[in-house]
Amino acid sequence: MKRIMMTVAYDGTDYCGWQLQPGRITVEGVINEALSQMLKEDIQVIGASRTDAGVHSRGNVCVFDTSRSIAPENVARALNARLPDTVVITGAHEVAPDFHPRKCDCVKTYEYRILNCQVDDPMRTRYSLHVERPLDVEKMKQAAAHFIGEHDFTSFCSPQTNAISKIRTVYETEIMCYNASVSGISDAREIVIRVTGSGFLYNMVRIIAGTLIAVGQGRISPDAISAMIEARDRRAAGPTAPAKGLTQVGIRYPSPDTPAKT
Amino acid sequence: MKRIMMTVAYDGTDYCGWQLQPGRITVEGVINEALSQMLKEDIQVIGASRTDAGVHSRGNVCVFDTSRSIAPENVARALNARLPDTVVITGAHEVAPDFHPRKCDCVKTYEYRILNCQVDDPMRTRYSLHVERPLDVEKMKQAAAHFIGEHDFTSFCSPQTNAISKIRTVYETEIMCYNASVSGISDAREIVIRVTGSGFLYNMVRIIAGTLIAVGQGRISPDAISAMIEARDRRAAGPTAPAKGLTQVGIRYPSPDTPAKT
Repeated sequence: MKRIMMTVAYDGTDYCGWQLQPGRITVEGVINEALSQMLKEDIQVIGASRTDAGVHSRGNVCVFDTSRSIAPENVARALNARLPDTVVITGAHEVAPDFHPRKCDCVKTYEYRILNCQVDDPMRTRYSLHVERPLDVEKMKQAAAHFIGEHDFTSFCSPQTNAISKIRTVYETEIMCYNASVSGISDAREIVIRVTGSGFLYNMVRIIAGTLIAVGQGRISPDAISAMIEARDRRAAGPTAPAKGLTQVGIRYPSPDTPAKT
Repeated sequence: MKRIMMTVAYDGTDYCGWQLQPGRITVEGVINEALSQMLKEDIQVIGASRTDAGVHSRGNVCVFDTSRSIAPENVARALNARLPDTVVITGAHEVAPDFHPRKCDCVKTYEYRILNCQVDDPMRTRYSLHVERPLDVEKMKQAAAHFIGEHDFTSFCSPQTNAISKIRTVYETEIMCYNASVSGISDAREIVIRVTGSGFLYNMVRIIAGTLIAVGQGRISPDAISAMIEARDRRAAGPTAPAKGLTQVGIRYPSPDTPAKT
């Protein structure tokens, strides 16, 4: 029996999120099915991030155990041939048998993408939120800096969470702004909110993004963020931005074969 | 009665091309329907490029006539509210009543996008062709130069065409190569074949792209292109590349209110 870790990228548009749900099409579900068919044994992967419906990923991580003798380096190619175009295994390798992707320290990075432009772009609309009026990027940068550090993020967490501790550490926030070439539109910009942390609560990045958009629109002051965090009340923060703009960029583990937390 | 010209962007994935077809969902069909509902009169647009099923656009052009008093600058916003996310009007203005988008000189630009990478990227797969093995970009550049000029492009045209003359002028070809950030993959590249010309025959850009990919794979020599053109035989050229990688980038008219050819 060996444990194989895979990195997974997906377009989340047509999935009811990562996590297995009976009667629904989920990323975990299609991977389990393809793996089980391929290896002819019942496989249930363990995922690192249980992303929401509509959220995308460039580097989610999952592990599975198999008694088959398949070489890990062949898993990606063989599995991709069986998976839909919207889910791609980007790599696979063997890890320690007790490695659990949710039970060891890691650094997760998410990006929230905004097309800030008079009109939406049909070739970006699956992966970014269209905001028509120009956002004040400088104010968004000021506001974003207030999230850095160890905080109780209750205000930035859906009340539907099961998490007991709401304390998380945000290592870095970054607001990037690029010229976007959108047909016939001269001042189109793509704004990317990049957040890196030890882990994120349910809807946390989407609420941070929704709040930063409200800052960019002048509806919330950058200086209000600290008080929002201190309030420990979901109603104190801004709206939850739509899922489609969110992409999980990747997860870094200290070492690929770090043992599980005990 | 006034004639309004609109620029249109679309994700062609789920459309049976531009042109109206009974019983099928086409870009022209959804625009006609939304415009007719909005203006409460029967509108039939005239499109510039009748792109194939699955081909995308960042700047197709169409015109329509209306007796309503709507200001052209309000057409885009009002119409976008009625159109699906996959079709966006990026601009609209009044043109001369005899302006016909297919009956005056113009310069059309297309891009064919290739993700040249070990694995496909689910967030690019709708808009680019995945080619696993590294392509020889230098050879593709050498080959692309041979298309420039006025030629009989019979070899690069689907035999199903209705076109009488196969003579077209290619003004420019360009092969661009970017580093593509694909999760965990170090040598991913996006290769863009950009072709500008007076007009293109049925499947012409896709056959040029398919031929250039074969050059990049070492299956066709860059020096073979001229003989392929001279052969005036579809069987002399390379394969037709899949529609999904193709995007019509835009159309330039000498002046937006150029009169129709007489």
